Amino acid sequence: MNDTNSGMNEFDFIRDIARNVPRSGEGLIQGIDDDAAVIEGPRGISWLVTTDALAEGVHFRREWAGWEDIGRKALVANISDITAMGGIPWFYFLSLSVPHNMSEADLSGFIKGIKDVASQYDMILAGGDTTASTEKLFLSITVVGSAAQDAVVYRKGARDGDKIFVTGSLGGSAAGLICLNKDIKGEKYSPFIMRHIKPQPRVRIGAWLGEHKCASSMIDISDGLVADVNHIADRSGVGYIIDAEKIPVASGLEAIDNIIDVDIKELALTSGEEYELLFTMSREQEEYFYSQSAKLDFGCQITEVGKIVKDDAKRQVLGAGGKNIVMKTTGFSHDIGS
Amino acid sequence: MNDTNSGMNEFDFIRDIARNVPRSGEGLIQGIDDDAAVIEGPRGISWLVTTDALAEGVHFRREWAGWEDIGRKALVANISDITAMGGIPWFYFLSLSVPHNMSEADLSGFIKGIKDVASQYDMILAGGDTTASTEKLFLSITVVGSAAQDAVVYRKGARDGDKIFVTGSLGGSAAGLICLNKDIKGEKYSPFIMRHIKPQPRVRIGAWLGEHKCASSMIDISDGLVADVNHIADRSGVGYIIDAEKIPVASGLEAIDNIIDVDIKELALTSGEEYELLFTMSREQEEYFYSQSAKLDFGCQITEVGKIVKDDAKRQVLGAGGKNIVMKTTGFSHDIGS
Repeated sequence: MNDTNSGMNEFDFIRDIARNVPRSGEGLIQGIDDDAAVIEGPRGISWLVTTDALAEGVHFRREWAGWEDIGRKALVANISDITAMGGIPWFYFLSLSVPHNMSEADLSGFIKGIKDVASQYDMILAGGDTTASTEKLFLSITVVGSAAQDAVVYRKGARDGDKIFVTGSLGGSAAGLICLNKDIKGEKYSPFIMRHIKPQPRVRIGAWLGEHKCASSMIDISDGLVADVNHIADRSGVGYIIDAEKIPVASGLEAIDNIIDVDIKELALTSGEEYELLFTMSREQEEYFYSQSAKLDFGCQITEVGKIVKDDAKRQVLGAGGKNIVMKTTGFSHDIGS
Repeated sequence: MNDTNSGMNEFDFIRDIARNVPRSGEGLIQGIDDDAAVIEGPRGISWLVTTDALAEGVHFRREWAGWEDIGRKALVANISDITAMGGIPWFYFLSLSVPHNMSEADLSGFIKGIKDVASQYDMILAGGDTTASTEKLFLSITVVGSAAQDAVVYRKGARDGDKIFVTGSLGGSAAGLICLNKDIKGEKYSPFIMRHIKPQPRVRIGAWLGEHKCASSMIDISDGLVADVNHIADRSGVGYIIDAEKIPVASGLEAIDNIIDVDIKELALTSGEEYELLFTMSREQEEYFYSQSAKLDFGCQITEVGKIVKDDAKRQVLGAGGKNIVMKTTGFSHDIGS
């Protein structure tokens, strides 16, 4: 730095100054194309960084959910991304644009929802930015989590012969959204509405699978099972066969399918914002998993729903009698209409 | 993990699982209350994480700036935060809510503006989330930068007797905003409008001051000089005396102050979104700085504008003849009206 820098361009200058810090790209173990970015941390730790945007009128409506639930769900969605990498959430950054037409009580409720989830997972608010907005609330949360470097589970690790599993049950979130959209209320419907507005991340099983190197790939079901298994297939360069008959369907759904006018199986295959985990295990991983899982309480069922195949063009969803199901759509759209 | 976990609550379970990763709070060197959070990195490196939200109609208007400039400025604001910590920007995460009424050409322009800045600093897009929005564009950018752990400059380091410096000149951004608000156009005004819609971060000097441990505290001027020196004073537990006569005022401002109806000094004291750096140096740091700076080209002037005093209640801005200036406002409001 004792030489003159005349003639250096901005970046040369920075490169020169930055000899003590990683060059661009160094330190970034995984960029886009996964649930979270992976950045090198200290002592064999990786930092996991994920960000999610939530727009009023698109992801939620004031009249559907209390502000507390809206805040809750915003942070849960990010925690779920960290979970899907096998990590634990630690810090969060909150970017908030607050409209003039939002009351102080509503804002407090919203913040309480976020804080309650943060406190449940002992997370710390590490930064953020709050600004005004013209009419609608917008927020973006960035969560930083961590995992031992060799415990991080990527989308890209699925291999031929691995089996595909999902946590919990599916279809409930989409059913709840339909009830909200059609203004259908009542005891039979409220579990689905609750499921949609108050989802739970699968932190226990996600972190366990990471630490025990028990999953070859993982993703959270935010777009819909088929859309998300496609992400795994895309990143891993493999195909899959999903057995739709095995998919665990949200209980009680069979009692309301006529009223909300849906095909249950199709709903379970496409329902988004479930925040269940979809993961793959090799035979060895599966053996270890079953040797341990009886002793553990993950708080949810684990169901085998298909397998990974070598041919990356082979992407099959089989229904009753092993017949191909042709999907109208692979997943969930955030557009709730105008 | 071989014991049964029955009876454990969610967090106990996670704590137990997480024995290989930092506990909450560990790894977080600096949380809120600075330009960026500081997270422990590998090999003596610190990661700097900052997030900024930008709302259409609040931070910018479509009719004022091309989309390319809007995108540009969004990333610049975040880079400036990293710079103010003595760091170099590396990765960014983009959360974007795109309204239906935004054309593909506009969106491309907007993305181009972001990409151009990213490429100027060799930054990598590491993640993000793009969703729909009802009417207005909203975006939030998270930037991860880095610095050697002992090179990070905090707001909290200012000490009694340190001198206060600013880079570049001030007042131009606010003048530009006034011209835009009042729809005043013409050759005399365009440098200020450009200054407002196309600001430059002070990456060179910021990173240099960090690496050479040449600043005891630092902040970027995004809220306005007085508001930002107050942040330094708050975090450092000190007071200050600013000599308003010494403040470098944007050149050409004296030719338009009557037309845009402002007090130049007051404008320079309160103008926000300048993205200049305000920093403090001890006598030793100052000596080293001047022994080196003649050989370096930071691309801007550096001006001494005041000093830090011990009494944290003493916060003075002195005008002509050493008279106290009583400020109507200390800074800049993002509310551009309706």
